[in-house]
Amino acid sequence: MKHLTLALATAGLLSSALAAPKPAPKATTPKKSAQEILAASPASDWRALDPENTLLMELASGNVLIELAPRFAPAHAANIRALARGGYWNGLAVVRVQDNFVTQWGDPDGDDAAKARPLPAGASPKLPAEFSVPIDRIGKSAGFTKLPDVDGWAPRTGFAEGFPVAADPRTGQAWLTHCYGMVGAGRGDAVDSSNGTELYVVIGQAPRGLDLNITVVGRVLKGMELLSALPRGSAAMGFYDKPEQRTAIQRVRLLAELPPEERPALQVLKTESATWTQLLDARRYRGGWFVHSPGHIDVCSATVPTRPMP
Amino acid sequence: MKHLTLALATAGLLSSALAAPKPAPKATTPKKSAQEILAASPASDWRALDPENTLLMELASGNVLIELAPRFAPAHAANIRALARGGYWNGLAVVRVQDNFVTQWGDPDGDDAAKARPLPAGASPKLPAEFSVPIDRIGKSAGFTKLPDVDGWAPRTGFAEGFPVAADPRTGQAWLTHCYGMVGAGRGDAVDSSNGTELYVVIGQAPRGLDLNITVVGRVLKGMELLSALPRGSAAMGFYDKPEQRTAIQRVRLLAELPPEERPALQVLKTESATWTQLLDARRYRGGWFVHSPGHIDVCSATVPTRPMP
Repeated sequence: MKHLTLALATAGLLSSALAAPKPAPKATTPKKSAQEILAASPASDWRALDPENTLLMELASGNVLIELAPRFAPAHAANIRALARGGYWNGLAVVRVQDNFVTQWGDPDGDDAAKARPLPAGASPKLPAEFSVPIDRIGKSAGFTKLPDVDGWAPRTGFAEGFPVAADPRTGQAWLTHCYGMVGAGRGDAVDSSNGTELYVVIGQAPRGLDLNITVVGRVLKGMELLSALPRGSAAMGFYDKPEQRTAIQRVRLLAELPPEERPALQVLKTESATWTQLLDARRYRGGWFVHSPGHIDVCSATVPTRPMP
Repeated sequence: MKHLTLALATAGLLSSALAAPKPAPKATTPKKSAQEILAASPASDWRALDPENTLLMELASGNVLIELAPRFAPAHAANIRALARGGYWNGLAVVRVQDNFVTQWGDPDGDDAAKARPLPAGASPKLPAEFSVPIDRIGKSAGFTKLPDVDGWAPRTGFAEGFPVAADPRTGQAWLTHCYGMVGAGRGDAVDSSNGTELYVVIGQAPRGLDLNITVVGRVLKGMELLSALPRGSAAMGFYDKPEQRTAIQRVRLLAELPPEERPALQVLKTESATWTQLLDARRYRGGWFVHSPGHIDVCSATVPTRPMP
């Protein structure tokens, strides 16, 4: 296991007075696979969906579930709730699919004042930029699970309430990272020009360069393939040039608008749980088919799992 | 630009006797956009396709071009040439599409000795594992362009001959990284159980944990969307459970098999060129719409561009 010994040697060189993440401790071949770890997880390691913070987007091809992150983008979350309750996206469409980047949806006529769909009552056309939050927002109350692995983009990474996050103690900020499946609010040039009407999801390599440049509002829990496998748009930046190419959105509702018995009965693994820590380790230290154990993961390496309520 | 000053402060803490990559130098807003940089590139910064190392895969939806990397996987490259010349993949299919992971193609009956398609003359059923090469393979002759950015997965990253690579001076090895669009050779449990008949391409977040565990043979130059936008398979690991779900491969040929005037007239940017260095900088230091310049990229952040021969 020569490479792991060398990783330990490097560990000493990387420590600093800033208590930067240390390389992961000496590897041992994990005793359990991911499936075994999940099967053995206690019920208390799972949480129910929050009906006030989960969107159900209905397409002809099936349903997409999106969880909002009000801890990180409270104004956008509130506006998105108002938009959903007002039926704003019903009949709108997927406007853009750019390979190795994003799928984006909203009002195809959103830039045309004459044709743009009006916002429902309670939804604001203008919101503050919510690119990051004070770092104490991811303190103990958020159950922040720090990753020990070095990340080239940020001094700290980890998970809070099911979301991948990064933080910089020196600027005192924390933010959601643009991992695969994360949903953000499209904006124009002005930092406060997003209002949650135009949303996108990452469908390729995590564009971490967008972190701290745009408001990330949540993540896709289920139905990702309905957005990632769409035909790529042939106009610039993956926009569709013909209206008939756009996948129609039938309806977007908050789960809270559905009678409880109709809401998808899904659970999400708590990222502050021992099960999640074990799952990360199972990805970090590999055996079996793997002949080289990476001894490393990054904040976008692993997706927080969901399961049907048992 | 407080965050950039802090990045410089960190730079001193990260230097080591091992000459680890240093954080990028002080940012300046780039004067040119990527499009401007490409438009200003000299002809000598571009190279033609090598007909002996480029595959043309024809699907009903269009064509995919794949460039092989014989510097890193010479035995697999040679076998793939023999397979292509023997028409091996003609009439085979895409067997698996797993969201945020890979699209894979080959012989759907490959595991059934009775039904498996025989290999053409000149193609071997068994090849050595080519998970990495000696690090001197990416020395000056390969025009290795080192990235100064810290990478959590490997001590060194950069580009060689148009491919993203990582290296470890302490183990003396270099390898191709599993970035989006990179193509690898599927294998079983034995390290020498790949022969290039079963190929996969990365269609999601770079699974860098696969680096050093499997032979990477090349990358998709064009037509990626024809592989990334396919419906995801509903069986385990994204395999298709019904034959009719599999996208058929009409034909795979080496460009060398086509008359020169029929070969796609495409050029690839040389990664040892000044243009590529400028493009990387344009991604590393952002202005305009960006309010936070990342000051960082990673080896999978940017795709080496192609263009029609002018």
